[in-house]
Amino acid sequence: MQAQFLTIEGGEGVGKTTNIQFVQSILEQHNIPFIQTREPGGTPLAEELRELLLAKRDEPFDPVAELLLMFAARAQHVSQVIKPALASGKWVICDRFTDATFAYQGGGRQLDWQVITQLEQSALNNFKPDKTLLLDVAPEIGMKRAAARSDFDRFESEQMAFFKRVRDAYLKRKNDDPERFLMIDASKDLATVQSSIKQSLERFIKQVKHG
Amino acid sequence: MQAQFLTIEGGEGVGKTTNIQFVQSILEQHNIPFIQTREPGGTPLAEELRELLLAKRDEPFDPVAELLLMFAARAQHVSQVIKPALASGKWVICDRFTDATFAYQGGGRQLDWQVITQLEQSALNNFKPDKTLLLDVAPEIGMKRAAARSDFDRFESEQMAFFKRVRDAYLKRKNDDPERFLMIDASKDLATVQSSIKQSLERFIKQVKHG
Repeated sequence: MQAQFLTIEGGEGVGKTTNIQFVQSILEQHNIPFIQTREPGGTPLAEELRELLLAKRDEPFDPVAELLLMFAARAQHVSQVIKPALASGKWVICDRFTDATFAYQGGGRQLDWQVITQLEQSALNNFKPDKTLLLDVAPEIGMKRAAARSDFDRFESEQMAFFKRVRDAYLKRKNDDPERFLMIDASKDLATVQSSIKQSLERFIKQVKHG
Repeated sequence: MQAQFLTIEGGEGVGKTTNIQFVQSILEQHNIPFIQTREPGGTPLAEELRELLLAKRDEPFDPVAELLLMFAARAQHVSQVIKPALASGKWVICDRFTDATFAYQGGGRQLDWQVITQLEQSALNNFKPDKTLLLDVAPEIGMKRAAARSDFDRFESEQMAFFKRVRDAYLKRKNDDPERFLMIDASKDLATVQSSIKQSLERFIKQVKHG
């Protein structure tokens, strides 16, 4: 069975952390070896870049610089962690990947979609996840959930309009590549959400197992 | 008089540091206001990226990640320092810029020239220096000079073949855009080198002053 690259995507308060643990438990039930990683980050160098990206600072962060830094961390992560794991037969579960850049920098910060597409090609040679679990929820609900947690980082301090653009960009990515996405309605209660994750993921595992 | 963006380029041991001070003294003699800066670096955030780039580390640095980091620092430097200075009427003297990326990453590390060209376009919107002083010397001579200094950083520890490719890439950049470059034979003694810098730079200042 070919090892698969799975990503989990979604805006604030969609329940990514909880549901990544749930995805892990499903792979364990199926005796599938995997590693779990996250973006930005995943290697010591990429984690240093993550800290740089998330730190609050006085100096305004040029949006294109932010975008390039994100892809620098990603190129490092792919070459040092993700591709070696897949090559050794381990599945990879990754908390966010390029779709998040389209959502946050493309949608949220309104950077040129075409520039991000060019970077996906030139920096990653168009390397993409095999499957992406998109946890979708209206930003009004997601933000209310996220507000229950403290210590908002720089991205979480943005305005509601920003998060509406983030969600729309995620949906655009899904519509541009529907085969790759497993879309989950994350506005439902946790039991319903996880039942639908389990169903989608087990269907995918079955496909992979039987070619 | 329109403020100008000057860069100083060249491989190891070409005498960049000494000659940058000399360029400053020429601008001072002509009462031209300027700032002096360097790459990678030039803002607090970009200097943090510089440290990341130059640090020796166990984790292999993915060459594309290195390239993206370099352009991230550059985009930040251009938007926060270089463009504001030029807009306020100050000339900018910069120790290395995009030509160095073509030389070190394109020539030295043999990364795809086309990818760097794409980044110059997408990350910088093709923003280039008005004039570039290229201090050129055969790597055999340059390395002998540089060896007199201690504490080689990661880039300086590379092999001679690397520095031959760096020089060839600088010369290719010059041949692709001859109008922008002032080429200086840095194998000569310091007095001869500085006399030729002074002559080239004063011709350029005259052109700028008289449109």
